[in-house]
Formats: sequence, C-alpha cells, structure tokens
Amino acid sequence: MQRRRFWGWGYENAGPEPSELAAVAAALGPLLGMQDVQRTPPPSLEELELRPPRVSAPPALQRIITGDAFERAAHSYGKSYRDLVRAFRRDFSNPPDLVAVPENEDDIRALLDFCASSQIAVIPYGGGSSVCGGVEPDVGAAFAGTLSLDLRRLDRVLEIDRTSRAARIQAGVLGPRLEQQLAPAGLSLRHFPQSFEFSSLGGWIATRSGGHFATLYTHIDELVESLRLVTPIGTVETRRLPGSGAGPAPERLFIGSEGVLGVIVEAWMRIFERPQFRASFSARFGDFVGGAEVVRQLAQSGLHPANCRLLDPLEALLNGAGSGDRAVLLVGFESADHPLDAWLTRALELSRAAGGEVAEDAIRLRRDEPGERQGDAGAWRSAFLRAPYLRDELVALGVFVETFETAVTWDRFRVLYEAVLGAAHEAGGGAGHKCVVTCRITHAYADGVAPYFTVLAPARRGAELEQWTDVKTAITGAMLRHGGTTTHHHAIGRDFLPFYQRERSDGFSLALTAAKRALDPTGVLNPGVLLDSGP
Amino acid sequence: MQRRRFWGWGYENAGPEPSELAAVAAALGPLLGMQDVQRTPPPSLEELELRPPRVSAPPALQRIITGDAFERAAHSYGKSYRDLVRAFRRDFSNPPDLVAVPENEDDIRALLDFCASSQIAVIPYGGGSSVCGGVEPDVGAAFAGTLSLDLRRLDRVLEIDRTSRAARIQAGVLGPRLEQQLAPAGLSLRHFPQSFEFSSLGGWIATRSGGHFATLYTHIDELVESLRLVTPIGTVETRRLPGSGAGPAPERLFIGSEGVLGVIVEAWMRIFERPQFRASFSARFGDFVGGAEVVRQLAQSGLHPANCRLLDPLEALLNGAGSGDRAVLLVGFESADHPLDAWLTRALELSRAAGGEVAEDAIRLRRDEPGERQGDAGAWRSAFLRAPYLRDELVALGVFVETFETAVTWDRFRVLYEAVLGAAHEAGGGAGHKCVVTCRITHAYADGVAPYFTVLAPARRGAELEQWTDVKTAITGAMLRHGGTTTHHHAIGRDFLPFYQRERSDGFSLALTAAKRALDPTGVLNPGVLLDSGP
Repeated sequence: MQRRRFWGWGYENAGPEPSELAAVAAALGPLLGMQDVQRTPPPSLEELELRPPRVSAPPALQRIITGDAFERAAHSYGKSYRDLVRAFRRDFSNPPDLVAVPENEDDIRALLDFCASSQIAVIPYGGGSSVCGGVEPDVGAAFAGTLSLDLRRLDRVLEIDRTSRAARIQAGVLGPRLEQQLAPAGLSLRHFPQSFEFSSLGGWIATRSGGHFATLYTHIDELVESLRLVTPIGTVETRRLPGSGAGPAPERLFIGSEGVLGVIVEAWMRIFERPQFRASFSARFGDFVGGAEVVRQLAQSGLHPANCRLLDPLEALLNGAGSGDRAVLLVGFESADHPLDAWLTRALELSRAAGGEVAEDAIRLRRDEPGERQGDAGAWRSAFLRAPYLRDELVALGVFVETFETAVTWDRFRVLYEAVLGAAHEAGGGAGHKCVVTCRITHAYADGVAPYFTVLAPARRGAELEQWTDVKTAITGAMLRHGGTTTHHHAIGRDFLPFYQRERSDGFSLALTAAKRALDPTGVLNPGVLLDSGP
Repeated sequence: MQRRRFWGWGYENAGPEPSELAAVAAALGPLLGMQDVQRTPPPSLEELELRPPRVSAPPALQRIITGDAFERAAHSYGKSYRDLVRAFRRDFSNPPDLVAVPENEDDIRALLDFCASSQIAVIPYGGGSSVCGGVEPDVGAAFAGTLSLDLRRLDRVLEIDRTSRAARIQAGVLGPRLEQQLAPAGLSLRHFPQSFEFSSLGGWIATRSGGHFATLYTHIDELVESLRLVTPIGTVETRRLPGSGAGPAPERLFIGSEGVLGVIVEAWMRIFERPQFRASFSARFGDFVGGAEVVRQLAQSGLHPANCRLLDPLEALLNGAGSGDRAVLLVGFESADHPLDAWLTRALELSRAAGGEVAEDAIRLRRDEPGERQGDAGAWRSAFLRAPYLRDELVALGVFVETFETAVTWDRFRVLYEAVLGAAHEAGGGAGHKCVVTCRITHAYADGVAPYFTVLAPARRGAELEQWTDVKTAITGAMLRHGGTTTHHHAIGRDFLPFYQRERSDGFSLALTAAKRALDPTGVLNPGVLLDSGP
C-alpha cells in the first residue's frame, strides 16, 4: 500500500517529475525575480523529536488508538502554506497526543466519552486536506491533551437507492474510493474539489466544500439528503427527505459545522447518473472583467452550465489554456438525459454577443461511447489534481504561494476584484520584491460570483508566517470591506476565525455557541474552530 | 379600502358567485351523500363578546397598539379548517390582548422590550394565512397576556439591485403589492403560493413556503440572499452573499423559524426577469402512480421544468382539467433568456415513452408579446387563488375539507401514497359516511416528491374539531411511518407540533431550544410554536 507523506500533499512516491519542476522553476524564476534558488529538502521522520503523549488511552480503547510517531506527525497539520512552512522547518512541536482510528460508531461514541470525561480535545480528521487550521490540535491550554479522530476506516458506500438517486455513505471515505464504489452502478456523486484524492465525504460536508459544478450544485450542501452524527450527548440523525418545510432545515446546522457540533459518520447523498452528453467551448476576452460579464449572463440565463470558469490572462498562461494576453472562459454542459445542442447554441450566442472570440475548433459537442474514458476531461482533471504536489515543491523552493477565495454579489464584484489585486500586490510584493497575482472565477450564481486568487512571491525566508499573515490580512480584509465572505469553499478552521468573527452577526454567534453547548457540554469537539476556544 | 374578513379568507365583498356555489354544492352533494345542507352564516362582529385585554400598553407605544375589537378578532386565528370551524361557532374566546402595527424597526424593538419585560407573548403576524396555528395566541398560562405583532406597515421594496438580480424588501409586504413594486422594472420574485394574495414575504420565509416553481426553486429558502431580524437581544443581520462556505449557513437557521427566534423585518431576495418564452403541455395517464413515474424522470432529467404537476383523476375532474378517468400531468417551462423548443421536445419524449397521451392541441410553445397579459396562466392563477374563498363556503355548508401534504423519497412514494389514501378513507369516512380523497403532486425533486392530498367528507356537526384530529392523526401518522415529513410547505405552528417532535432528532431539538434561549431569553417569541411552550 502506498504511504502518504506525513509532511505534505499526497503519496510518498508521487509528485512532479524533475523535468516538470525544472520547467516551472525556469518560468517562475524571472517572473518573481528569484535567483540562486535553494530547495529545502522535506523532513524525514527521523529528524523529528515528538513531545511524548500527555495522556494515555484506557485499555479498552487501545485497539483503536495509536501513539505511533508517523501517525502523530501526519496528524499535526493540514495542508496549508502555513502547515508546509512549519513542516519544512521541522517544527512538529504540537502533535496530537493520540491518534484514533475507530472502526464504527460504537468506537466513536466510546472515544467521545473518554475524551469528554478526561478533558481531551477531539479533532475530527477526514482526509487531512484542511487549509485553514481545521485539523491542527492547537486548542489552547485548557485541555489535558488532544486526540486526532481519523475516520479513514469508515469508507464504505452502505446502500444505493437507485430510484431516488441517493446513496448512504460513510463519512471517512476519500473521493476516489467513493466514486469507485458508485461506478459499477453507472452512478457518481460528481463532487470533485481539488482535494478530491485526499479529502473525505465527511470533510466536504463539515466544511461546505465546493466542487465540480460551477453553477447550481456548487457546494456539497445541495447534495446532502440527510446526515448522521455522533455527538457527546448522543447520535443525531436527520430524516431522509427530498425537501421539507418542517422548522429550520436541521441538516443545514451541521453542514459547515467543522466538527464543533458532532462527528459526521454517515450521510445520504444525492447522486447522479454518469453524464453521456457533453458540450463545451472556450472563448477569449480582451479583459477579465469583460469576460465576467458573460459569466453573469450565463449564470442568470437558466442554462445551468456544469462548467463556467473564467481565467485571467496570466492564469490562462500558467494553465496552458492561453497565450497570456486574453482572458479565457471555459463553458461546459453535461447530461445523462439529453443532447445539449440548444444549451450550447445559446451559450455561444451570449458569449459572442459580448465580444468573446470563439474558434470553431474550440467547440465540442459529443456523446460518450459506452465505457469510454474522458480524454480531455481526464487530462484536465489529472493536471488539476496534481497541482497540490507542485505547490509543495514551490514552497520547498522558497516561493510564497497561497490562494484566497471569496464570493460577492455581482454589483460589488468589480470593486472587490480591483481592491484585492491592489492589496495582494502591496502586501505580497513590497520591499522591491516581485509578486504575481492571478484570478479565476470558479463558481457563479445568478446573484453573484466566487473569484479565486493565487498569489506567488518570493518567500521571506525565516519570516514566512509573518508574510502569510500580512498577505492574508490585507486580502481577506479587502474582501470583507467590499462585501465578500471570508471563504466561499475553504472553511474557517482556526486560522480564519478572526475574519469570520467580523463577518458573522453577533446574534448568530450566540445561537451557534448555545447550540454547541447543548450538544458538546464539555466543549471538547474541535475547540478553537468557528468559535473561540475553551471548555 | 377593501376590508378583510375577520373570520375567514379574503375581502368582505369578495368570494364565489351564488351560481358558482350552487354548482359546487350540486356536484359535491351526491359525491359526499349530503342532503338537506344547511349553510351556517358567517359571524358578525356584533355577535362577539371579546374578553377585555388583560394587559395594557405603555403610553409611548399606544400610537402603534390597538385594542380594537375588529383587529383583535381578526388576529385570533389563522385560516385553517379548525380556525374556520371555531369562527363559525362564534368562538373567539382567546383573542390577543393587544394588536400592534409597528411602522419601523425601532417600534418593533420597543415592542419586544415591553413584552419581554412584562412577560407578554409576542405573536408575529404577516398575512395571517397560517393553517397550523402559527398565529393563534394560544400560549399557555405562563404569560400575562398576548400581543399580535402585525407587520403590514412594513410593505415596501426598499432597493433593487438589477445587476445581481436581487431586491431588499420589507417583510410585511403581501404578495400582490410586492410584485406590483417589482413589475415596473420587469422583475418578479415569482413566488406564488396559494395564499399569495394574503400572505407576506416574512411569513413565507418564516414558514419555508412552497411556491410557483415545481422544481429547483420549490421553497422560498432558495430565493433568500440575506435576512434581517429583530430579536429580544438585538438585531441579527446575515451578510448579502450569493454563496458561502463560512460556517453553517446563518440564514438557514432563521428560515423556517416561525417567529420563535426573532421577527424577520427585511430580506434581500433573489428575483427574476419576467419570463417571455413559455412552453407547456398536458399528458394523460391511466393511473396516478404511472404518471408519477414520469414526474420522477422529469425531475431527474436536468430539464428543470417550472411546472410539473400531476393531478389524480378526481382532482383533474374537480379542477376542470380532465374527465375524471385519467391522471393529468401538467408540464411547463419558462425563460426570460431563450426559446424552449429543446426542453419541450425532450419532456414530451419522456412523457410519451412512458405511455402518456398528449393531444397535439395540448402543446403550447410561445413568446409573449411585449406587455401581453398571460391568458391561460392568468385564468389558472385566478382559479388557484380563489380556491380558499370556496373552501370557506364549503365549511359553512358543513363539509369537512382539509389538505395534507408531505414530501418523501421516490423509493417510498408509492407505499406512502397508498397508506395515506387508506388512512384518509378510514378516518375521513367511517360511520357509513362517504369521503372523497384526491391527490396531486405539487413539487418534484431528483430524489423525491411532494404529494398533496385533499380530503372532503360530511362534517360531524358539533364534533368537527375531533373529526379533524382523527383525520390529521391518521394521515400524518401514516406519512411519518412511511418516511414522509410532517409538512413540505405548510409549516408546523402549534397544531402540528406533536408530529414534528416525532420527526425531529432529539439533538436538533436541544440545539434549537438552546439557540432560542440565546436570542429570546425570556421566551416571549411565539411560544408553543416549533418548541414546547413556556418561558
């Protein structure tokens, strides 16, 4: 079995080829004005001296609890830039004391009982892909210790209801294994966040992850039919319903609760027949804001494209989708039911009417052959999913690389966009350093849009965390000032709490705090996430 | 200005023509085996002796508070069958002590302060169309008195953001006046519940009402961009966002909260361009369950029809849409953006392939002329909106008439449907009485369906409330046993609380109770609704 890296993204034996790396370094070097680039080697387990566990498990739980160094190191961080920087520094000073790998709900109940009675903080852990400190056991001094609760053994599709297009799925399953279990029935959840390979269903639900669909089913929220959670006071299960008007939607309180209200163990998910009809095109625009106007029209058209992504010129260049002088709009439709000619025709009409250039060979309309693998889509998906590996290598090379995303109503989009660009350049560059900022639109709504910024700059060696704080504060501050949200689909965790607190109404804070107290009276569930820490 | 009836639906001078009534009575008489039908005259204000108010308003609030008998009588009940029966009995034994008509948020804050400090229960009141005891001041003995908080003066569209297709709207506005304010801009909320004329935006949001769209935007939930509420501890406002991943969706806690967490005063709503392209057809099926199979296929097709309603044979007959021997499926598409030929073609294909008979003259595909009024749709809407008037007359004639709706996943639909029919006939008929039960599908989802049952039977004169309880218990009990919800879009109020408590997970009850305590520490907001009463 392949082993995952304890310090960064993915499998130990995977990652970019040396030639690929050299090409990226060659391109980025001049762009960022970096010379004499030194590559920091990744840490090895032998270099680490982990603090001995401060607590120990009772005998009855030792079967599912480990104090193994590899496991503890691997559960010390998520996969953010901050996490990578600290891993490269060999700073594993706050590992979880214990790592638990429960086999079933009874195990989880027993673990919560143990932790609640011993004042041990519990950190639910799915795929570990958090980029906001959501799985880091940084819980303050009020706890006797920390336990990382890894759900990886709860990885099965338990039931498929083909008539209702739904499946009951265990929360710990990672993306590929989930799809693998649905594929023989010709079904798919069609939720492909960039973290797909190493993130779990429970993690997606706990963090309201954003996926494949650029419109309509943008967040995992829309795909959840019902939920089952284990909380310190008992099991909570919502009713399997296609829709309801009975009180506030119960599942919505738990979707996005990031482990502070309970541990998601199972969900009935709405699934799809695998599409067989596909239509797509790309269009080029003189500038990003002009292209965004077409995204708005498409999002308001009722055509509901599955893909509707706009890359600014530099983003297009770096992704091999353009020459760097035009913004590129990618539009795609998919259906298991009907040919998409009419959808394609209208979307082309809208794009061209707004000045989009569409080459005839950039238009595709096709029906899959039975059993066919997706050529183009497959290649894109592979590149998309390999990006996090590359990111880790950039960090090793001393590049500051971070993404910042938000959502905002259309009326405020342009001002927000320009303010973020300004803030990014000011905070990311500075001191004569070059800084590259790219933007793409990842999801679109009738009433607004989710822009996604990537910032690349030479890292301030030794002060990377301070640099991160400066850039994050400048960019997310600008987002909040101009009507955006702290996060469209990267969650809050511990790292973004100060921003979330500015965004959130006091009344909702009080309600959420009260709900947590009701379900987690001793406050052991993921303290410091979403709400101020402390039991 | 027209005055509304204090005892039932609509305006005093409106309602069915005598000839229309005679026709209905002639049709229903034999169907229900009713002879010698006596019509109970509606109550007049002079017949009532209202209990004197038990509390009085401080001088500073007298400007916006009334103890007027008409107002108190009109705020005694919603518009359910139970309410009608009691009104015809002249039973107005528990009117609100005070009725308040605030002009603005400051007034509402002052009213909540007064009520919280005087232990007076506050019943938020929009259009008064509740059919579940949601606006009835039946709050138990723990309160010094009751105040009905009527939001009718908050009736303006405050702001339109055309770019984002959204509008900021005061919560007290009723349907027609809301649409009237959006119409000059060519915009529409397109939320048309049957109560449209006499229900308010705030009421729709507080009760998660179901509207015009049979698929996709079935509930008002999907149209809410942000909310503003006044609570006893202060104002709560959610951020205007098209989508977000920052914690549990705050607006979802308040949508469906039925006045127990706060008083909704404003919302940013997602609105639509008025459609100009329309396509529709009707198809006939041998039986209801066969027709439902096509509804499932349509709901899973990704075509997203705006209308997708299935009437069983008797429902079709009573609505003038069929001869009573076939189920009738009504399918419609609408768009402001594009012609709908492809959508229509595919929906016809699906319907015919499943055995639906579609007459060529039952297919319509058209584009509105500028300024054109909708002929067919207008006529249907008029009949749809007049139905509640007719219902009141049936009650006067001694007919038990009530609707029961739910939602259920497709895999359990057929069994639920048959169980409800059985339970309805057994409880509604009985003692040799005839009983008519009809069913239609009002909303459809990829994973399930919302069936809507109407039960007509001779009322047990003098024991109408017991009859209602028998029928409701039998039908909603069957719905819950077979995987349905207590309500798809009629809310919970006080009347359906026992069923809701069976449906709701204990953990969610605790969380909701805790949230209420945080926002409404003295428990004065709509006690007895959604949660057990008591301060």
